[in-house]
Amino acid sequence: MELDRRFRRGIIFILSAPSGAGKTTISRAALQRIGGLEPSISITTRTPRDGEVNGVDYRFVSDDEFRRIRDAGELAEWARVFDAHYGTPRAPIERAVAEGRDILLDIDIQGARQIRRNHPNDTAAIFVLPPSFGELEGRLRRRGTEDEAALQRRLLRARAEASAWNEYDYLIINAELEDSIAQLAAVVAAERMRTARLGPEFEPWRS
Amino acid sequence: MELDRRFRRGIIFILSAPSGAGKTTISRAALQRIGGLEPSISITTRTPRDGEVNGVDYRFVSDDEFRRIRDAGELAEWARVFDAHYGTPRAPIERAVAEGRDILLDIDIQGARQIRRNHPNDTAAIFVLPPSFGELEGRLRRRGTEDEAALQRRLLRARAEASAWNEYDYLIINAELEDSIAQLAAVVAAERMRTARLGPEFEPWRS
Repeated sequence: MELDRRFRRGIIFILSAPSGAGKTTISRAALQRIGGLEPSISITTRTPRDGEVNGVDYRFVSDDEFRRIRDAGELAEWARVFDAHYGTPRAPIERAVAEGRDILLDIDIQGARQIRRNHPNDTAAIFVLPPSFGELEGRLRRRGTEDEAALQRRLLRARAEASAWNEYDYLIINAELEDSIAQLAAVVAAERMRTARLGPEFEPWRS
Repeated sequence: MELDRRFRRGIIFILSAPSGAGKTTISRAALQRIGGLEPSISITTRTPRDGEVNGVDYRFVSDDEFRRIRDAGELAEWARVFDAHYGTPRAPIERAVAEGRDILLDIDIQGARQIRRNHPNDTAAIFVLPPSFGELEGRLRRRGTEDEAALQRRLLRARAEASAWNEYDYLIINAELEDSIAQLAAVVAAERMRTARLGPEFEPWRS
């Protein structure tokens, strides 16, 4: 039987990966299929891509607005990636933790560090790796969205990012999407059973 | 994809519960149904019950033999329960951890404390509670193996034991056996993904 949400704090699940490891696919599937997992909607200064909906995929803001929000301390983490800024609003996350609701954050390694530093007891951090570097290179080539120079830069960056795996609590080697989602579901279920998340209101058998 | 056992230490899963919570049923089902989980065969000085097989359920030893084994430092934990001694042999557990094999220990709270003290990085400790004290009383009455005085003693002891829940990593509220086994399976899967269990041999993408 699942622990009553009234007795426990919510959990911030952090999902990070090197570029091309399949993190976004896992994250989207997890939000649809793992019960009680909510997305966090980031703010970003980049322009929307085709099909992206403001307020659903991201909240799109101007550079000035981003600066104002960040300087007011309203972001739990933020990062600059290429020419754009990305940030995670703090208030919805803190409200979720207080109310025993669980959030899934699909963020980069810098962002993950900030969140873990600010919420050390309320996070569970998962790193996703492709089975091998060769496999990653194959995936990026099949995607075919970049020229050779850009691809090589992305590969170098991915190799550097991969070395952050040991800062995370859990490691998923993403060979088959279905396996990886099942593994993430196991982490979510197990983390919900942690006694450390139970508040003082939980006292078995008072009755 | 599961992490290659060659790269990680084995895990000592500890299952404890107050008397009557259903721990032994969960433990037996888990050993049959969760892959790669091995039992530990305890030694005990008590006489075998009907159907118990020496070397399978327990290794049955004399008081003298127990003392010799214990004093030689060959037990990872031991305890006296009523008039008998119980102990967990140390060598098979340490071998399993070194070889990346996972063990399930069905032990009492005292034993769990000893194991966790001696193997702090290699244990995952799970506590099982019945949904309520009234439910526990009902289960023990339906079992009908004790007179009223013995039942009252067992209930008092169970209530005291229940307060140890917060020494454990995970809590299972055992309302439905199938749910509880699924929860234990999630803990096993998640613990196998922990980066902290990976040895220095694990270095992604050396190739």
